[in-house]
Amino acid sequence: MEKTCTDTHLLAMNSSEKQETVCIFGTGDFGKSLGIKMLQCGYSVVFGSRNPQMSSLLPRGAEVLSYSEAAWKSDIIILAMHREHYDFLTEIIEIHNGKILVDVSNNLKINQYPESNAEYLAQLMPGSHVIKAFNTISAWALQSGTLDASRQVFVCGNDSKAKHRVMDIVRALGLTPLDQGSLMAAKEIENYPLQLFPMWRLPFYLSAVLCVFFFVYCAVREVIYPYVYSKTDNTFRLVISIPNRVFPITALTLLALVYLPGVIAAILQLYRGTKYRRFPDWLDHWMLCRKQLGLVALGFAFLHVIYTLVIPIRYYVRWRLRNITITQVLANKDNTFSTSSAWLSDLYVALGILGFFLFVLLGITSLPSVSNMVNWREFRFIQSKLGYLTLILCTAHTLVYGGKRFLSPSILRWYLPSAYVLALIVPCTVLVIKFILIMPCVDKTLTHIRQGWERNSKCSKSALNGKSDL
Amino acid sequence: MEKTCTDTHLLAMNSSEKQETVCIFGTGDFGKSLGIKMLQCGYSVVFGSRNPQMSSLLPRGAEVLSYSEAAWKSDIIILAMHREHYDFLTEIIEIHNGKILVDVSNNLKINQYPESNAEYLAQLMPGSHVIKAFNTISAWALQSGTLDASRQVFVCGNDSKAKHRVMDIVRALGLTPLDQGSLMAAKEIENYPLQLFPMWRLPFYLSAVLCVFFFVYCAVREVIYPYVYSKTDNTFRLVISIPNRVFPITALTLLALVYLPGVIAAILQLYRGTKYRRFPDWLDHWMLCRKQLGLVALGFAFLHVIYTLVIPIRYYVRWRLRNITITQVLANKDNTFSTSSAWLSDLYVALGILGFFLFVLLGITSLPSVSNMVNWREFRFIQSKLGYLTLILCTAHTLVYGGKRFLSPSILRWYLPSAYVLALIVPCTVLVIKFILIMPCVDKTLTHIRQGWERNSKCSKSALNGKSDL
Amino acid sequence: MEKTCTDTHLLAMNSSEKQETVCIFGTGDFGKSLGIKMLQCGYSVVFGSRNPQMSSLLPRGAEVLSYSEAAWKSDIIILAMHREHYDFLTEIIEIHNGKILVDVSNNLKINQYPESNAEYLAQLMPGSHVIKAFNTISAWALQSGTLDASRQVFVCGNDSKAKHRVMDIVRALGLTPLDQGSLMAAKEIENYPLQLFPMWRLPFYLSAVLCVFFFVYCAVREVIYPYVYSKTDNTFRLVISIPNRVFPITALTLLALVYLPGVIAAILQLYRGTKYRRFPDWLDHWMLCRKQLGLVALGFAFLHVIYTLVIPIRYYVRWRLRNITITQVLANKDNTFSTSSAWLSDLYVALGILGFFLFVLLGITSLPSVSNMVNWREFRFIQSKLGYLTLILCTAHTLVYGGKRFLSPSILRWYLPSAYVLALIVPCTVLVIKFILIMPCVDKTLTHIRQGWERNSKCSKSALNGKSDL
Repeated sequence: MEKTCTDTHLLAMNSSEKQETVCIFGTGDFGKSLGIKMLQCGYSVVFGSRNPQMSSLLPRGAEVLSYSEAAWKSDIIILAMHREHYDFLTEIIEIHNGKILVDVSNNLKINQYPESNAEYLAQLMPGSHVIKAFNTISAWALQSGTLDASRQVFVCGNDSKAKHRVMDIVRALGLTPLDQGSLMAAKEIENYPLQLFPMWRLPFYLSAVLCVFFFVYCAVREVIYPYVYSKTDNTFRLVISIPNRVFPITALTLLALVYLPGVIAAILQLYRGTKYRRFPDWLDHWMLCRKQLGLVALGFAFLHVIYTLVIPIRYYVRWRLRNITITQVLANKDNTFSTSSAWLSDLYVALGILGFFLFVLLGITSLPSVSNMVNWREFRFIQSKLGYLTLILCTAHTLVYGGKRFLSPSILRWYLPSAYVLALIVPCTVLVIKFILIMPCVDKTLTHIRQGWERNSKCSKSALNGKSDL
Repeated sequence: MEKTCTDTHLLAMNSSEKQETVCIFGTGDFGKSLGIKMLQCGYSVVFGSRNPQMSSLLPRGAEVLSYSEAAWKSDIIILAMHREHYDFLTEIIEIHNGKILVDVSNNLKINQYPESNAEYLAQLMPGSHVIKAFNTISAWALQSGTLDASRQVFVCGNDSKAKHRVMDIVRALGLTPLDQGSLMAAKEIENYPLQLFPMWRLPFYLSAVLCVFFFVYCAVREVIYPYVYSKTDNTFRLVISIPNRVFPITALTLLALVYLPGVIAAILQLYRGTKYRRFPDWLDHWMLCRKQLGLVALGFAFLHVIYTLVIPIRYYVRWRLRNITITQVLANKDNTFSTSSAWLSDLYVALGILGFFLFVLLGITSLPSVSNMVNWREFRFIQSKLGYLTLILCTAHTLVYGGKRFLSPSILRWYLPSAYVLALIVPCTVLVIKFILIMPCVDKTLTHIRQGWERNSKCSKSALNGKSDL
Repeated sequence: MEKTCTDTHLLAMNSSEKQETVCIFGTGDFGKSLGIKMLQCGYSVVFGSRNPQMSSLLPRGAEVLSYSEAAWKSDIIILAMHREHYDFLTEIIEIHNGKILVDVSNNLKINQYPESNAEYLAQLMPGSHVIKAFNTISAWALQSGTLDASRQVFVCGNDSKAKHRVMDIVRALGLTPLDQGSLMAAKEIENYPLQLFPMWRLPFYLSAVLCVFFFVYCAVREVIYPYVYSKTDNTFRLVISIPNRVFPITALTLLALVYLPGVIAAILQLYRGTKYRRFPDWLDHWMLCRKQLGLVALGFAFLHVIYTLVIPIRYYVRWRLRNITITQVLANKDNTFSTSSAWLSDLYVALGILGFFLFVLLGITSLPSVSNMVNWREFRFIQSKLGYLTLILCTAHTLVYGGKRFLSPSILRWYLPSAYVLALIVPCTVLVIKFILIMPCVDKTLTHIRQGWERNSKCSKSALNGKSDL
């Protein structure tokens, strides 16, 4: 602790400004950590406690008083206590009139109470200005000083002046305040730190299911089948060869699933003849996690690319290539060059590379800081035009890969076609429907609907009426 | 619609706060979509319409009144109508005194009117507080709820209090308000959604021209020439081999073009003897899109890397390698190892990899969120020092690639040198000029000029005068 | 200059709003550049100068007056002068009462003066509102108009209204103001532009030392040893083969060093029995630059991946593979396939790819814009869970690479083991200690301590006391 006090930088800050006093109610871990941090940043801290005598554990430099005494010392009171103990505040309610109460509490579950803790507090203490803040910062982060994670502190409250005072404190602690508006936002702010990638769940489970299915499918065709028929030990294929089939298939299917909900939504709007009716919940949720679906697909595509590029350094591949050469030399066979094979092999590779390149481009533009730089028109251009081009290139890549062997009966094993054939089902469906949707006659109606036109409108004049409006 | 109303999360929000009323003028698509969104987020919405009877199409829960009746209901009026219809507002001008008018309009063309719509509105309604907002959000995005694109809403206005009220509404709708200052910013905000990558156009067209030129050039040398002289069918080279010449050439040329304007600007400043005269427009524009030029170059370099890495898995390459081995075995030739060839081959590859690595680093630091983290000194270090190092490495990579064959007459076909020789012209020029510019005598003068010194200043004392100033 | 004045866009802005007047004290380079920029953006600029007659060099359109005359013209005065000249302001102190003084100054060294320039100014001029701003923007950037670097202008000051007026000017110049709170932040803002990657220094020097050491080590084993014993010229190995040993070793060691301080901190907390005592300075600094350590490690891993992928296109590798084939053919040896070799080779490659994939994922989530999107719980999940998984995969990759040869005496040269054996020391140590720390008995104590429990607390009730607090 003494270390901190001799920190020249902090001393310099202290000396140039008279200290502001902040009161913290509650001497738990978070209250303590916040207090230490505030002391380090030049604030004078007063703790409010039930038993002010038990002060041995509190940071040196901080005063500890009873709740009501502490409350007199400052007009900003940070409540570092659980919601269950808010009632006691009503006992000292007259002290709090006009004061700023900072609610830092979190709950154990999402939507645990009907109203947010901060709103509950505001109801209990109508005379004070309740501000929600600091709940997204952990005590551990404050304590260790290693705020590698987000430095963002969401702040909301109904009183603008009180909010700005709290935001200034947040800044003084080296954190970034983000004004989230009125206390109505408190519920969302309280739910935020409890989330664990809510939008990534569907994409994650979906890709896990796809991966497992195709892994088993390929293992049956390429490991079990040869073992049953020719007792060959192909188990080493489980490590690279089969994953390198599973990954591109999963990537292509997920990429197609990014564009499927848009196509379904268009059909639904055409069928209903209006855009002002909400989509079913599953479609809504699907549309909201399209970005995550696409990024998971990009991950699999990335793995596919590296798995493909390491092919020539694998022991098995080197052995096989050597074998081919030796066989040719010993058999004195002619090493004939087939232009069509060269074309197919190069075309398949080139389509894959270009598809991957556009895919990476889509991924980069979905980075928050990049997508904030583009306007709606540019975003649509990238995600819609370039997105479909990516899907077309990747589908073509898979089609050319199949090449002449595509669906030939010799490729069937136990009546199972090659895995890549299954991979083509969803993307081809999406592309065909999209192709129908962009045909002039269909597209015209859809555009009308999306501009607000409704097929079953009772008063035909209303369209005219709205003509002059945006 | 009923779905929305039973949304528990939203109900919870509604219940905890009494509803604020917002008035929307205009029942067009955007007005309707915004109204629905506001209803969902707990606002009470009143539409103002020319024909309030035609209300069947409006969202349930919203009231529809005549313009003047609606205006009485709220002190915030959102004008969802075209600029052409703003005049009618003057008829009910007395109602609007002191009210907040939110201009959400967009135009069809950039700089369509001499003044922005919001400024025009402010002139029409001098007694009200005009705020520009929401114009960057599309009705479709509001409606479908899938705001994958930018959630940023640019807000500007001359009255600070009015601006903050509108910003609170923006936050309540789950969007991010960005304060752009006074109404002077409205013109830029209105132009923003009409742009389609204005800074990317020059780099895009430039790279397209370079690509096409070098593609044709290489096709003539590597496909048409062998066909004419030996009837060999080399068309498969069009797919990977030739693009893998075109991409690195384009990348290197574009990278050099990133540094060329800086070099030209330095020469211009040396020639003029001052930095206080503006550069010609073309140079200004060129300098402003250097970042985009560099990123396009990085894209081509990325393609070049993958096209190179897939070389060993191409059918043609495998066939050729097999051929060499078979020929050697059959001819019983000695497979001698040349240390100098190993050196050249490894050096060329290593230079390329290091150049690409630095190039990727430059690309990452040009991401908005990363470049916001570095200060001016760090940015200059990366973009200038590391940038030139990248250019030197990539140029050296190309030079070593040429190796012994460089400009040897045997490589000429129809008097055309190899394409990579042409690729070296611009980068070598830039590097030579830069080398001259950093020589002490020249560098000293340039540094003086950039610190504000002027060669032809009339009063020699003025330099002295400014000495104490920044 | 005339060019600027005929700029239609700017004229349009000027016409729609009456011009605000800003006063700039000091006609040095920065003052001039800022003045030109403000004139271009529609402001009326008055320069204050010691010798107003020397006005020939000032931008056309700007007035030049003596300091006191100029100060009368505007209530915003930008001080573009060095701190040493602030004293003269006291002579005209009565003029400045209530005015906004904008301090744009920078120092030559970090922490050059005990208090920041802005705070010093505020002490000199108690009646005026001092705002710190613009110091992070360079004159060159303002002049050339090419603000590719950060457009962020840090603004701080004690008067909220004055701060907002300055922030509006910042926005009008096309820059992004960032409110940093009160004038206490001025010191940090003044130090900011003088920094050159302070957090990157330790990782950089560390990796440089590791690289040089392992490069020499490998050179001794693979170039000097064969030269001494068999006069083989292996110098070409210095270009790719040896770097491709040095890079992965450095990457793995650095990655382990990212997790080592966390493990040391845990041991320290267990030993001390409390989390409320500060870590030693070296540990603090180490923990603060973990992110940078990890990113440098990722850079080396990236280089390792590309160096590995180019293996098959190297001259030396092609020659060696051809040699093996020819030898086999000529010796009529059987080309036997070893399943265990295939397993080992594939496993080693697959582990490396998956490790690299997770590593890239960690790198992406450490981008500022991405890490701002995740909450503390998600960040911990990624950096801790995924981070350790990456370390485990990469360590396993190295172990399997060693395979059967691991520590076999035949691999020793001059008693030196293979370099990768040394690379395993740190990661294995970290993993073993971590494994001990997550064992239930140890983990339980540690969790208690991290929740605020203290082993040597005097009053045992205090824990009870804090139970209800956060």
